Amino acid sequence: MAKSADFQVRLQPIGKRVAAAPDVSLFEAARESGIDLASACGGEGNCGQCRIVVLAGETTPPNFDEKFILTELELKQGERLACCTYARSDLTVNIPRDSLITGQRLQIAGDLRQIAPDPLVRAYPLQLAPPTLADVRPDLTRIADGLAEAVGLRGVFADPAVMRTISPAVRQTDWRFTVFVRDDREIVGIGEWGKRPSGFAVDLGTTKIAAYLVDLETGADLAAAGAPNPQIGYGEDVISRLNHVHRHPDGGRVLAGKVRETLNELLTELLSQAGITSDQVVEACIVGNTAMTHLLLQLPVRQLATAPYVAAVGTALQVRAADLELTTAPGATVYIPPCIGGFVGADHVAMILACDLDQHDKVVLGVDIGTNTEIAIRKPGMSFLTSASCASGPAFEGAHISDGMRAATGAIEKVRITDADVELTTIGDGPAVGLCGSGIVDVAAELYHAGLINQRGRFDKTSERVGNGRFGPEFCLVPAGKSGNGRDVVITQKDVNEIQLAKGAIHAGLQILLEATHTAPEEVEEVIIAGAFGSFLNVRNAIAMGLFPELPRAQYRQVGNAAVVGAKWMLISRAARARAEKIAKGTNYNELTIYPKFSRKFALGMLFPEPP
Amino acid sequence: MAKSADFQVRLQPIGKRVAAAPDVSLFEAARESGIDLASACGGEGNCGQCRIVVLAGETTPPNFDEKFILTELELKQGERLACCTYARSDLTVNIPRDSLITGQRLQIAGDLRQIAPDPLVRAYPLQLAPPTLADVRPDLTRIADGLAEAVGLRGVFADPAVMRTISPAVRQTDWRFTVFVRDDREIVGIGEWGKRPSGFAVDLGTTKIAAYLVDLETGADLAAAGAPNPQIGYGEDVISRLNHVHRHPDGGRVLAGKVRETLNELLTELLSQAGITSDQVVEACIVGNTAMTHLLLQLPVRQLATAPYVAAVGTALQVRAADLELTTAPGATVYIPPCIGGFVGADHVAMILACDLDQHDKVVLGVDIGTNTEIAIRKPGMSFLTSASCASGPAFEGAHISDGMRAATGAIEKVRITDADVELTTIGDGPAVGLCGSGIVDVAAELYHAGLINQRGRFDKTSERVGNGRFGPEFCLVPAGKSGNGRDVVITQKDVNEIQLAKGAIHAGLQILLEATHTAPEEVEEVIIAGAFGSFLNVRNAIAMGLFPELPRAQYRQVGNAAVVGAKWMLISRAARARAEKIAKGTNYNELTIYPKFSRKFALGMLFPEPP
Repeated sequence: MAKSADFQVRLQPIGKRVAAAPDVSLFEAARESGIDLASACGGEGNCGQCRIVVLAGETTPPNFDEKFILTELELKQGERLACCTYARSDLTVNIPRDSLITGQRLQIAGDLRQIAPDPLVRAYPLQLAPPTLADVRPDLTRIADGLAEAVGLRGVFADPAVMRTISPAVRQTDWRFTVFVRDDREIVGIGEWGKRPSGFAVDLGTTKIAAYLVDLETGADLAAAGAPNPQIGYGEDVISRLNHVHRHPDGGRVLAGKVRETLNELLTELLSQAGITSDQVVEACIVGNTAMTHLLLQLPVRQLATAPYVAAVGTALQVRAADLELTTAPGATVYIPPCIGGFVGADHVAMILACDLDQHDKVVLGVDIGTNTEIAIRKPGMSFLTSASCASGPAFEGAHISDGMRAATGAIEKVRITDADVELTTIGDGPAVGLCGSGIVDVAAELYHAGLINQRGRFDKTSERVGNGRFGPEFCLVPAGKSGNGRDVVITQKDVNEIQLAKGAIHAGLQILLEATHTAPEEVEEVIIAGAFGSFLNVRNAIAMGLFPELPRAQYRQVGNAAVVGAKWMLISRAARARAEKIAKGTNYNELTIYPKFSRKFALGMLFPEPP
Repeated sequence: MAKSADFQVRLQPIGKRVAAAPDVSLFEAARESGIDLASACGGEGNCGQCRIVVLAGETTPPNFDEKFILTELELKQGERLACCTYARSDLTVNIPRDSLITGQRLQIAGDLRQIAPDPLVRAYPLQLAPPTLADVRPDLTRIADGLAEAVGLRGVFADPAVMRTISPAVRQTDWRFTVFVRDDREIVGIGEWGKRPSGFAVDLGTTKIAAYLVDLETGADLAAAGAPNPQIGYGEDVISRLNHVHRHPDGGRVLAGKVRETLNELLTELLSQAGITSDQVVEACIVGNTAMTHLLLQLPVRQLATAPYVAAVGTALQVRAADLELTTAPGATVYIPPCIGGFVGADHVAMILACDLDQHDKVVLGVDIGTNTEIAIRKPGMSFLTSASCASGPAFEGAHISDGMRAATGAIEKVRITDADVELTTIGDGPAVGLCGSGIVDVAAELYHAGLINQRGRFDKTSERVGNGRFGPEFCLVPAGKSGNGRDVVITQKDVNEIQLAKGAIHAGLQILLEATHTAPEEVEEVIIAGAFGSFLNVRNAIAMGLFPELPRAQYRQVGNAAVVGAKWMLISRAARARAEKIAKGTNYNELTIYPKFSRKFALGMLFPEPP
């Protein structure tokens, strides 16, 4: 809320005024007014994405982070990082296009099949005679009797949170309403007459959150939305977040609160898109890796952060949405599928489920690329699946890359380096402002193909196409004059090294999993690439840079965010939940780092492959 | 916590200093420091029980309530009501003995039988091998496997609140601990090795709360405690509390919070008495009338306060103790038995259960006297019980009576008026300061017997023993010189009228219930008198004043607080819960006020009976 001590900040060119308290950064102030600036670090002064230009007014002077990230010229021209800048008077501020998150590309589910809904929660319309002095049955009893008479349900009950809403609700609707009943025995809420039951499916990634609103009866998507995981500000990777909780007495509550808040914001957005009300959200399914679900549930994580890395809970959970402070029907339940081991969580189970890896009659590899990359292999002869997890880092999500960014408007998604030129495609076709994951893979493959980097990833400094930047050799994709933000879009030596680390980890994971199951690479009949980044990837380039094994292109199948599709399946179908629980039990987990050959395979995987 | 702005108040003769903020009454300030002053009104300036004498220092001047209750002389001598007085400097204050709650008599369960424990929660000692890199089962899975191996339990689960405590708890105990498991399937908490499971049984009365701590395995009482219902400050009777909630948007939360806070205080006291820890409190059973349980659970009450007076919920409830903010084991459950109708609640079911009214082979009347008096009749020929509820008011609990008080030290509990003198007994044998319930009945019966009041309850103003006080004719039981507070202890015309209203209501209820079941009074073979007040009552005098029907004394049985005994039974026994649910279904409720003869019977019941 705006207080008298707040300064007024006029944001251009969008023409919005926001209030900014003196102790709140402009990044935060904008966010509080619903304007999200780009950020990979969550406002920690690390990523340099939230650039703004202060046109008029007084602010705090540039801090250490800004002096490191911005050039002297940029600072002189009024460029600042919104997360490091605090108002000291009313301000006028320009937000460059690439700092504004608009039109972020939603992760589309590829060619995964649909399943028949078989939901736990059903809607029953009821019309009842109101109480009289001659019939003083308690309200809950009256509804239970009504359900028994109308649809034959016996012995329904309700949680106190639901009981608190029933008496006013039935009177507001004049005793003509919809009862949402879970598993034919528990009333989870009361809606207006004729309202349909819907559910909330979430893939809670370390970096990104993808969410869907789904009609429980038809299985149809009602709306989709995504957001960065707000815990990023407390650590980009899983371990640093767990350590944060360990070091701060209140850390668990704060990190749980952050992500719950974002889930509620997503839910609000989805409800508004779909035009339905929160009391119709009667069930949810949230998948994520073990650390993400532990942090969401505010479970103890100390034992998860130190060897032997033990989860507090690994079985499937059914938790009250109210316990997670979600704004749903009062009795809604959140289903969290079981996990497989250490950090291989419910999201991996969801991916295996949605890709039908447990039911394939071929040798199939499933790869879900994210901050952690999970790999599973299915061999029809074996009664179980085998899986592994590699710490691939967030490079393919645009983090740790100088001009990396999320897959939003202005992100370079395709690159071709010809002898004379660079051809590229951006999301939204506008001027380029950075590189998203698929562009990063293309750049790496193309630089190698063009001989501008060698097998070890070193730039050819002798080439006139390789420039010399602040951090050593670099390749300019888009010169400042043509870019969308007035700065060169480049790829540096450090960026190439980051990409090599990521591909090294994934390569090692794939190799070890194949060896552990005595599978030769050529035996693999299908490779399913799941994950947000995987769906826009140029597979030929991914093979060329050595990210994936050299198999015929036709054997690769890009299925998009399979984890969220798995979450949707479990949201709408009891049978899918039963299958997920079977998958978790029937999957062998391989801890990669205990394999003696891991380091060697990792190092080998960092090299670019010999040209064919 | 004491703040710098607080004044210091020295309380004499107990020699304790307490801090008092300028906006906190001395009554509140004392309470916050653990010193409870007597009060029937909860600190609302109505009852005049929290008298203090300000010996030194500045306070706010006497307010309207004080000027009404205290005489000019008393005010001159520095007497004040603690609930109306606020410090304006450091103070020295004297607390007269009768204002201090000490030695309040606990309600003893009379000759009710004991039942065999058959508890829902059991304790299992476990010693497990800690996780290693070769065995990274999640903690909950490890415990579940341990329980399966040790005692054959399969598929145990836990609530997130419990999961949050398990991982640190098992590590603190070096994997040697006690698991408390409910219904052989749900872990409700972890305790130290060898700890026993205990439970919390509560009779949540409109005026008083009685609570026990019970060993679940033996059924033995570990500790007992009582407290006034703190909601009294929001209305002495049920309807005014419900109206308070209706009129105040936040009322439901506040009233629930008040009673939950007192329950936690009682629990702390019980734990300290018994020398056990809160994580051993693994189950609870709370009984109360429908309004009390609705307010505790913060259920909607608007429909309960207006015709046709419908409960939101009437069935048995199992609620998380954490939902009621009780400090117990994290997964403890509170069982609230079903109610019978309108205002006839779980406490009445508990009383019927503990008195075995449902299993008697005689014609039995069960009477539970309280602010509302519940009556049940058992006729062996009939397949059901019949019950009714009368609004008898709090007179027998000492409220609405000029010198009425709770059954605490200095309360007159027995009275005999001889031709020349008054003989009396006080609780603790100290000087008299007021009258508790049994004393009130004695006084009424003895005044009538001595001819000092007539059949209509009017004082004989011509008698020299009848004085003339501020409120008309009165009888002095103890002159100021001999009392414990330097004031006359009297019974006034208004007091006699209050007693008549109470007995009129109970009499009408009994009469109508007998008629409704076609039972002549002489057919009644046993009258069970339950309730705190009933256990110390002189039955002969109760018959003489017309409170009870004229039956041989031997047919009366005083069983004390049967409701809390019923709560203890349901706490320790599944069979008792099953019986309670059968009782609730098999009891016909009679709404007294719709009987055409009610008013006439009420009026007749107010009269004192013809002398035999």
